[in-house]
Amino acid sequence: MNEKNEKLHMARHSLAHILAKALMELYPQTKLTIGPAIDDGFYYDVDLDKNLTPDDYEVIEKKMREILNRGEPFTRKVVSKAEALKLFKDNPYKCEIINELEDGKEISIYYTGDDFFDLCSGPHVESAKNLQNYAFKIYAVNGAYWRGSEKNKMLQRIYAYAFPDKKQLNEHITMLEEARKRDHNKLGRELELFTTVDYIGQGLPILLPKGAKIIQIMQRFVEDEEERRGWKLTKTPFMAKSDLYKISGHWDHYKDGMFVLGDESKDKEVLALRPMTCPFQYQAYLNKARSYKDLPLRYDETSTLFRNEASGEMHGLIRVRQFTISEGHLMCTPEQLEQEFKSCLELAIFMLKTLGLYEDASYRFSQWDPNDRAKYIGTKEQWDEAQNTMEKILKHLEIPYEIGVGEAAFYGPKLDIQIKNVFGKEDTLITIQIDQMLAEKFGMEYTDKDGSKKRPYIIHRTSIGCYERTLAYLIEKYAGAFPLWLAPVQVKVLTLTERNNDYAALINKTLLDAGIRTELDDRNEKVGYKIREAMSMKIPYLIIVGDEEEKSQTISIRGRGFENKSGLKLDDFLARLQEEIKTKKLN
Amino acid sequence: MNEKNEKLHMARHSLAHILAKALMELYPQTKLTIGPAIDDGFYYDVDLDKNLTPDDYEVIEKKMREILNRGEPFTRKVVSKAEALKLFKDNPYKCEIINELEDGKEISIYYTGDDFFDLCSGPHVESAKNLQNYAFKIYAVNGAYWRGSEKNKMLQRIYAYAFPDKKQLNEHITMLEEARKRDHNKLGRELELFTTVDYIGQGLPILLPKGAKIIQIMQRFVEDEEERRGWKLTKTPFMAKSDLYKISGHWDHYKDGMFVLGDESKDKEVLALRPMTCPFQYQAYLNKARSYKDLPLRYDETSTLFRNEASGEMHGLIRVRQFTISEGHLMCTPEQLEQEFKSCLELAIFMLKTLGLYEDASYRFSQWDPNDRAKYIGTKEQWDEAQNTMEKILKHLEIPYEIGVGEAAFYGPKLDIQIKNVFGKEDTLITIQIDQMLAEKFGMEYTDKDGSKKRPYIIHRTSIGCYERTLAYLIEKYAGAFPLWLAPVQVKVLTLTERNNDYAALINKTLLDAGIRTELDDRNEKVGYKIREAMSMKIPYLIIVGDEEEKSQTISIRGRGFENKSGLKLDDFLARLQEEIKTKKLN
Repeated sequence: MNEKNEKLHMARHSLAHILAKALMELYPQTKLTIGPAIDDGFYYDVDLDKNLTPDDYEVIEKKMREILNRGEPFTRKVVSKAEALKLFKDNPYKCEIINELEDGKEISIYYTGDDFFDLCSGPHVESAKNLQNYAFKIYAVNGAYWRGSEKNKMLQRIYAYAFPDKKQLNEHITMLEEARKRDHNKLGRELELFTTVDYIGQGLPILLPKGAKIIQIMQRFVEDEEERRGWKLTKTPFMAKSDLYKISGHWDHYKDGMFVLGDESKDKEVLALRPMTCPFQYQAYLNKARSYKDLPLRYDETSTLFRNEASGEMHGLIRVRQFTISEGHLMCTPEQLEQEFKSCLELAIFMLKTLGLYEDASYRFSQWDPNDRAKYIGTKEQWDEAQNTMEKILKHLEIPYEIGVGEAAFYGPKLDIQIKNVFGKEDTLITIQIDQMLAEKFGMEYTDKDGSKKRPYIIHRTSIGCYERTLAYLIEKYAGAFPLWLAPVQVKVLTLTERNNDYAALINKTLLDAGIRTELDDRNEKVGYKIREAMSMKIPYLIIVGDEEEKSQTISIRGRGFENKSGLKLDDFLARLQEEIKTKKLN
Repeated sequence: MNEKNEKLHMARHSLAHILAKALMELYPQTKLTIGPAIDDGFYYDVDLDKNLTPDDYEVIEKKMREILNRGEPFTRKVVSKAEALKLFKDNPYKCEIINELEDGKEISIYYTGDDFFDLCSGPHVESAKNLQNYAFKIYAVNGAYWRGSEKNKMLQRIYAYAFPDKKQLNEHITMLEEARKRDHNKLGRELELFTTVDYIGQGLPILLPKGAKIIQIMQRFVEDEEERRGWKLTKTPFMAKSDLYKISGHWDHYKDGMFVLGDESKDKEVLALRPMTCPFQYQAYLNKARSYKDLPLRYDETSTLFRNEASGEMHGLIRVRQFTISEGHLMCTPEQLEQEFKSCLELAIFMLKTLGLYEDASYRFSQWDPNDRAKYIGTKEQWDEAQNTMEKILKHLEIPYEIGVGEAAFYGPKLDIQIKNVFGKEDTLITIQIDQMLAEKFGMEYTDKDGSKKRPYIIHRTSIGCYERTLAYLIEKYAGAFPLWLAPVQVKVLTLTERNNDYAALINKTLLDAGIRTELDDRNEKVGYKIREAMSMKIPYLIIVGDEEEKSQTISIRGRGFENKSGLKLDDFLARLQEEIKTKKLN
């Protein structure tokens, strides 16, 4: 954390104490627990018999402002464990914390004025005067278990934003409002891209026709591009006997994340849904003897995977239990490794650029954690070899990366391409991995020039990330206004009067026959109403036809980018659409 | 069975007795059990301590011919149970059968000559003389448990073909040899279309790149054609909570065929893989309130399904535990039902014709079995209504069908399109179903013109059958020599000498850039060897280039249909390929 951030963090933490003091003055029965600074403010968990509602937020904020205006100092005092327990004797939460402190460890109390103190390791501002310019706003009160455990009492967690001044606070709130409007989990439903249904289950979204269309377009684009780059499509089963996963190591290192069908203690055959494609796709390699002349051998698959995650962690299209991904495995000789790694990276970058997501991407070199050996297969020597090889390639290719210790796959290191969502949260979208350990487990080999049997290197890679998650990012990136080539409905034809229905239908059919995804709205409604409805669905272009257009055999268009044009020839407009689609023009 | 078939059946059954007599003469320790006529001959299950091998087949056949030449009569004799038990006192199998016969029931014994008799209800030919023209051939001896139960002794089942004359027998054997060559489970592996792996499991085939390519082509073709016909693609999850299946009725009527994840007796949430798409796709309909103006609403999906079938029943691409199908559900008003049913049928016929499978198709009207009510949801009135509606439509559309009682889905009657495979075995490839019962269970409705809420009709339909099974039929239909538009490799470019490698590479690239699936074989091998190898992979066209072609900037081609041409311009040949692909020309 840099100095500026440290200062902001300290101020937010000090404001949490001001909140605590305000609560004690307003509701003296309050039992304070903990109240840290967070990314955009602070929170405080309190045990309070009164349920705080938005009406109370203002009352509390006013009291906080009143306390700040007193300009009281923040004073640190060191006490013994016995003294601390005595000071907080009425607060079982603080006592629990104190009792857990190591004997002999310094215990500090921070006073704000003379009448309020809190157990705290600090640091804090010198005086409340330092906080007087700060702007803050309570925005939520949620339930939170003491120490995060369901077994404990449910407390109230009071969240507040806090920034050095009113302007920064307002900017932050505006940004969040904008992000919320873009939130794929809200907007994706409004645009009829997907839905979820309680009795089907969490993390199992249903892609409605408009969402399914975008995924279909992306899948075909990816499959074709990969074929052009020398990848061969496979279609492998979504489940296998436990025997397969025992060979691959998934049974020992990944079973908790898998859906298992059957019970080993009583069933003759236990199957499991696949969490990864690797051991399935290897079977294509293993289907016959391979020679160095066959390498590199590149297999891709539009692959559906299943991860048994807890229901509570599910979220929209981002955290799901079933997803589809373009997963590829490439077998090559050591000499080919760097060039092939590079072309996998180029493929991923090409995809991100085409979708307009590249500017939000960063790289993470995910390594094993040598102190948590049980998580991984292979020896230290194998890990060192794989990580050194990968590091050399990354350095050589001048990839700027951060290191993520303990983030490797159980069978090898990864290069992760990370994407930030509209709320600033980072997730892995694409990974490229190097592996020889699974090649060994499955006895994969090739005959080299000299006739000797050798172990191929395997590159595991995705090229576009899982389609559901990529769709979520696209919804948020474009606030639902997708580039024309991805838009589920590209054009809507609207009539001004019922007299123009035939002319509109002809235009609609001409576009449909040319492969444009159109809809016709010839309802007997006011055109303003029809335009607003189409705009709310973020359709790229509206064609509006009335008597004038019909007479002159032209069209009027209205684009999402507030473009209005009349007197256009349909052919010219169609040519423009086709060009925009062909070049995959971004907005 | 018609008169001719009855006669043939009787002759085959009589030949089974001749086989039995031959065995008793050759191996007097033989214990006979049962020996019925079958489709192309007969078999006899015998308990014999000597393991019969192909060397013995000829000996037995010779003995049978010798017996036939004796021209002995077949004589029927009625005996009492006690007499029968006495006659067969040395044969526990026959005694078991006799003891199970109802008391007082007539027991008949058939004599062949004076020295051989068998327990048999007949009828038989009058004399072995009637069988002297018959041709027969023992072709297999397999193990078979007495009465089909693993708990009983393993017997030897002796199979023989039998036909009225040698010509017909030979024709049958030739047909089977041809069928065996076309057997998708053999040829599909040789052509590297798919494979299976023990440790992955039975019924879970791995589509290798060439097989995956054919499926990809078909899936895109189907999705596009359906879109053109007004179907909207969905992508719905492959699993759901048991709650969904309890609403749909699958939990009560189909659970045994489903893969269940978890155990209801201990898990909070039990999921199951879907065996059908219906209740998932309905969610798109249920996503918002529907009016008569929205109907018909047609949803399709390239849908993966899972059926928990016994391992022993698995076979190649035909009997599998996971498969993908173009499954559609169409919601319409009663007035729209016939027209929509007709267009679903037209769609299926269009697909079959495009693939060249239409001539092998027949129709079956699959109805419920009113005597097995537990298998179905709904009332008798609902079933009568649905079946009468369907019957009226089928009659009106003049569909020639057979009736299959007890073959309906648990929620409604079906029109099944049946296809015969190369061995003459019939299977369902496509079904079209009418259903209102599931619409009721899921509370699906629409607002009619008069404002009242009504129940839509649902048509469940497939349009091409499950892709794996369709691929199996295509392999067998074309003996692996797929029509050009489906061929995974369409052209192979072969060089005569290494001098022509650059020219061949240029031709290969020109074709690739034009979207033709080509391979280049510029190995330093004899061209005859390279041609034979390419022909064995059933590649539609080979382009052969040597010095002569390079000098004149032409190509020589060799087609699968023994077409040989020299001096062609590449552009002309490419245009021909593109036309053949565009029109989906059949071989």
